[in-house]
Amino acid sequence: MNVYIYAHLDEQGLELIKQSIAAHELHFHSCFSSPEESGDAFSKSDIAFGTVPANWLQSDLKLKWLQLESVGFEYYQGLEANNLPEGFRISNLKGMFATPSADTIIGGILALYRKLDQFTLSKTKQKWRSLELRPSMRTLKGKTVLILGRGSIGMRCQKILQAFDCDTLCFGRPGTGIDIDSPEALDDAFKTVDIVITCLPSTPETRGMINSQRIASMKPDAILVNAARGSLVNEPALIHALQNKSIGGAVIDVTKDEPIEAGHPWWNCPNTILTQHSAGGYDEELVDKTRFFI
Amino acid sequence: MNVYIYAHLDEQGLELIKQSIAAHELHFHSCFSSPEESGDAFSKSDIAFGTVPANWLQSDLKLKWLQLESVGFEYYQGLEANNLPEGFRISNLKGMFATPSADTIIGGILALYRKLDQFTLSKTKQKWRSLELRPSMRTLKGKTVLILGRGSIGMRCQKILQAFDCDTLCFGRPGTGIDIDSPEALDDAFKTVDIVITCLPSTPETRGMINSQRIASMKPDAILVNAARGSLVNEPALIHALQNKSIGGAVIDVTKDEPIEAGHPWWNCPNTILTQHSAGGYDEELVDKTRFFI
Repeated sequence: MNVYIYAHLDEQGLELIKQSIAAHELHFHSCFSSPEESGDAFSKSDIAFGTVPANWLQSDLKLKWLQLESVGFEYYQGLEANNLPEGFRISNLKGMFATPSADTIIGGILALYRKLDQFTLSKTKQKWRSLELRPSMRTLKGKTVLILGRGSIGMRCQKILQAFDCDTLCFGRPGTGIDIDSPEALDDAFKTVDIVITCLPSTPETRGMINSQRIASMKPDAILVNAARGSLVNEPALIHALQNKSIGGAVIDVTKDEPIEAGHPWWNCPNTILTQHSAGGYDEELVDKTRFFI
Repeated sequence: MNVYIYAHLDEQGLELIKQSIAAHELHFHSCFSSPEESGDAFSKSDIAFGTVPANWLQSDLKLKWLQLESVGFEYYQGLEANNLPEGFRISNLKGMFATPSADTIIGGILALYRKLDQFTLSKTKQKWRSLELRPSMRTLKGKTVLILGRGSIGMRCQKILQAFDCDTLCFGRPGTGIDIDSPEALDDAFKTVDIVITCLPSTPETRGMINSQRIASMKPDAILVNAARGSLVNEPALIHALQNKSIGGAVIDVTKDEPIEAGHPWWNCPNTILTQHSAGGYDEELVDKTRFFI
């Protein structure tokens, strides 16, 4: 079989691919190839690994299986219109980013609650601010957390937050152990919880669901975490709420524009941890992606 | 009975004290009183709340019970020499700081693992560093954590770390569910674990136990957390290890000198989260201390 590798691999991953699927013909995508050369090699392939351009996926496709190198799959929305051959399958990296993402989400919340961002800045200024910061420090115990999404990231966050003695409320697809099952119940939850964690995929249903009304209804000390996609949130409304301190803070992994340009209002939002779309990252990431594919 | 209040209270705590123990005579310590006036009021008291000077506790003490406003009690070491009356009791705030301290400890570790300190500094510089930082980001899952101390802080850390799928090893007093019971076994543990968390009291037995040899034996990516007292650690050795990056990083809540003066080498240690002895702090702290005493 012909296997087309579009994914970004490290040396270890490359070696692993070469050893594990040596029986097949491998084509590595190169940014030095012309679009014609790349398209030609891809058109002969049975399997591909990597998030190839959506316009490569057409009705005359020979490919049987495409393995994405992401969990998100919004790049391929509307693909039905391309009339892809019956039997063609796409798989994502479902589950692979649960551990790092939950670590960043919980770490980001704790950074705000325990003023770790303030202590980091104080360190560069060699300034002792303990007595000043201490009365506004918070603890996770007893807080109510609304988790949007019952995928692997949401469920890992729930498990960990329960060990911190938080109460959790879940919103997701019906039949997946959810507590909240209507837009009205979701509106109500936004008004009462201490923390909202967003880890839903970007789909036509989820886009804009963190709307200005829901943001405005949050408690003055509530925290919003977005580890999903920027498109889920009304960003101007959220930035406004943060700048006016009408909510307590935010942990923002994903934004509509990435990278965030210098001068963008995100950089100046107070009480905001910006993790620059790194929540899924970890030291063994590239080789684990390759293992997942193999 | 006469009750002497030396502790620092907030308005809510003050109100609570006045209401709850109205049947007793209350004396509030004031920094405007002369030592004679303070000493006189204290000498007539049956109960005191607050960490009073150790030299107030003498053989002619009328006081029956002293409630400290801390968990640490190193201020009173050597008190046996004062020949205090039989039946005099001191209690600490045992357990009160477990929740905030565990939040700071876990938050500090996650800040290092997920580069939250670096992202905080990048935010002030409006600089996108995601691709640069991502390959060195780590996850807690599967890490081995050595917890020194089986008090409420250590046990809460253990419970939470288990939810992150860490393996934990405990060192403490015999008969308290410990895994490590000798100095040699402790030496060995330092060489192999990913994280060491220190939450032991400062006593003659614990002072200096994080010695230069144990620090030098730690893995190059290992993290040391000190949420106990500065006296437990050989600080010059630890600072040297951090500056030379012979260990991965540290979360330092307590130091020998507090506050840390400008120019002190602590401020310039790389990969170090300095939380300025705030780990026990939280918004409801003063009123909870008062409730504990009442």
